[in-house]
Amino acid sequence: MTDQLPVTPASRVPAPSGISPEAQRYLSLEDPFGDSPLPADSTDVEAWTSWVASRDRAIVERIGSLMPPDLPLERSEFQLDGVTTYVMRPTHVPDSPATPIYVEIHGGGLIMGGGDACRLMASGGALGRSMITWAVDYRMPPRHPYPAALDDCVAVYRHALDQRAPEDIFVGGGSAGGNLAAALMLRAKDEGLPMPAALVLGTPEVDLTESGDSFRTNLGVDHVLSPLMPVNLLYAGGHDLTEPYLSPLFGDVTGFPPTFLQTGTRDLFLSNTVRMHRKLRAAGIEAELHVGEAMPHGGFGGTAPEDRELAAEQALFLERHRRR
Amino acid sequence: MTDQLPVTPASRVPAPSGISPEAQRYLSLEDPFGDSPLPADSTDVEAWTSWVASRDRAIVERIGSLMPPDLPLERSEFQLDGVTTYVMRPTHVPDSPATPIYVEIHGGGLIMGGGDACRLMASGGALGRSMITWAVDYRMPPRHPYPAALDDCVAVYRHALDQRAPEDIFVGGGSAGGNLAAALMLRAKDEGLPMPAALVLGTPEVDLTESGDSFRTNLGVDHVLSPLMPVNLLYAGGHDLTEPYLSPLFGDVTGFPPTFLQTGTRDLFLSNTVRMHRKLRAAGIEAELHVGEAMPHGGFGGTAPEDRELAAEQALFLERHRRR
Repeated sequence: MTDQLPVTPASRVPAPSGISPEAQRYLSLEDPFGDSPLPADSTDVEAWTSWVASRDRAIVERIGSLMPPDLPLERSEFQLDGVTTYVMRPTHVPDSPATPIYVEIHGGGLIMGGGDACRLMASGGALGRSMITWAVDYRMPPRHPYPAALDDCVAVYRHALDQRAPEDIFVGGGSAGGNLAAALMLRAKDEGLPMPAALVLGTPEVDLTESGDSFRTNLGVDHVLSPLMPVNLLYAGGHDLTEPYLSPLFGDVTGFPPTFLQTGTRDLFLSNTVRMHRKLRAAGIEAELHVGEAMPHGGFGGTAPEDRELAAEQALFLERHRRR
Repeated sequence: MTDQLPVTPASRVPAPSGISPEAQRYLSLEDPFGDSPLPADSTDVEAWTSWVASRDRAIVERIGSLMPPDLPLERSEFQLDGVTTYVMRPTHVPDSPATPIYVEIHGGGLIMGGGDACRLMASGGALGRSMITWAVDYRMPPRHPYPAALDDCVAVYRHALDQRAPEDIFVGGGSAGGNLAAALMLRAKDEGLPMPAALVLGTPEVDLTESGDSFRTNLGVDHVLSPLMPVNLLYAGGHDLTEPYLSPLFGDVTGFPPTFLQTGTRDLFLSNTVRMHRKLRAAGIEAELHVGEAMPHGGFGGTAPEDRELAAEQALFLERHRRR
């Protein structure tokens, strides 16, 4: 679909003047995540596994270099059927049944971001919330295609419901984690589980068919993210990409909890996000949309004032939906 | 700035599949507004006047063809210092001091959209609100540059305050009207006037310097709107474009009323809108953002389901901010 279109290299669209110097610097990076080409053969499990391992190492190195090792987080973990969930509690937050649980579902294209990357990626957010974060290290392709990841998220959500009232549970995820977080809502509804207090969808990959307009208009304008169809097909493992559990944008969102959505004007997933927002609003769901100027997929690297401002906006949203 | 960049002709970015057939059809139009080139000489008042007249005729013809002549609107008008305001009351709405007034400030690049075009453009919105609409036929360049238009808006707002409590006054505008509506809030604050109950900014032209990222990333992707710098300079009449009364994005928005903002992913003013939203939120203002998938500047011609859905969203917002 998209390769018939001219790609404007990111370097051809200079950073606008109205964003912070940090954000401008991030946009000037040739290739912020040191992207390497996907394996050519989608059936080559070894090639994919090694590609994923190298991407995960890059994530761990990048976040590790930004984050001090002695964060004020009390850490533990638990296993459900062999799947680890990392538990992080800011030391100022009481370890009490009255403290809400935030189920964090990591990003990484539904194929990366597990293990140490999962744990590290969740740390910053965990620190900023007065909640206990559960970061789900769900199973992924190439060894575990759909529905393994979603099954794992459902199991963890059920476990949270054993420990808390739904009003004290929050669910959130960015990018691929936004796919799973939204799909989890659909599964929970279908299985008769109550909705959490609120949902956070950060630039969510809610449409694995990649039908949104920004997959073309922001192609090459987003210097972080390219279309992911080979990965989507690997994840789907033969399932139809339009199935709502794979592309929650096509699901019935009636009864969803209040939802916070975030994207950027340069984001390849801009359309994913605004379409999900409109879909939620059309279903009468309380849903708020925030869009960063010139922001590519996932923000400006996490440390620009714009990133902090949107994190504060998200914190306000969560605070507003906490039980009084 | 922008002419160094490649313009992707709109025809190169096909309409995405996820929008309505009506919206797809609108995106396939070569030139929805039959654009004609701006006069070359910015000091040639006759050339500008005749260009504006021809553009206004096109607007009147287009809207006139869409709108039945016998709308259920009770119409009148009043003059302040020779400037007309068109008054429209849906016949089902009581002509009573308890009925709120909606001050509508028309679009048209700060140079077009006066007279019959002003009256016609306001009719659809007036019909959809259970309020009395006042459509301000403000003065414009080339004969009346800044601050004539803004002065006229202030005069009409003062007149509304003579007739209603501020809680029963709403202010809104699209495109250039969004510029004047936001600038009116700044002027009102500076002149010690109270804020209205709420503000509507539809894809607002809040930055006449055109510094937003979408002035480049959506150049040619928005098939309706091109940069307007020659018009902006004509409007400014020698004033600095960064002055907040000319570019309210650079003003102090503290104390603004609750604000509804609308744009589209293809909108040349996408950045204008999301930057204004973030600025309002940073100042602690209640502000909600709505973004239409693949929507260019000003919507899909007004009659697509997506246009109606956003109009309904706006109506909900106004309803929520009416005095009980």
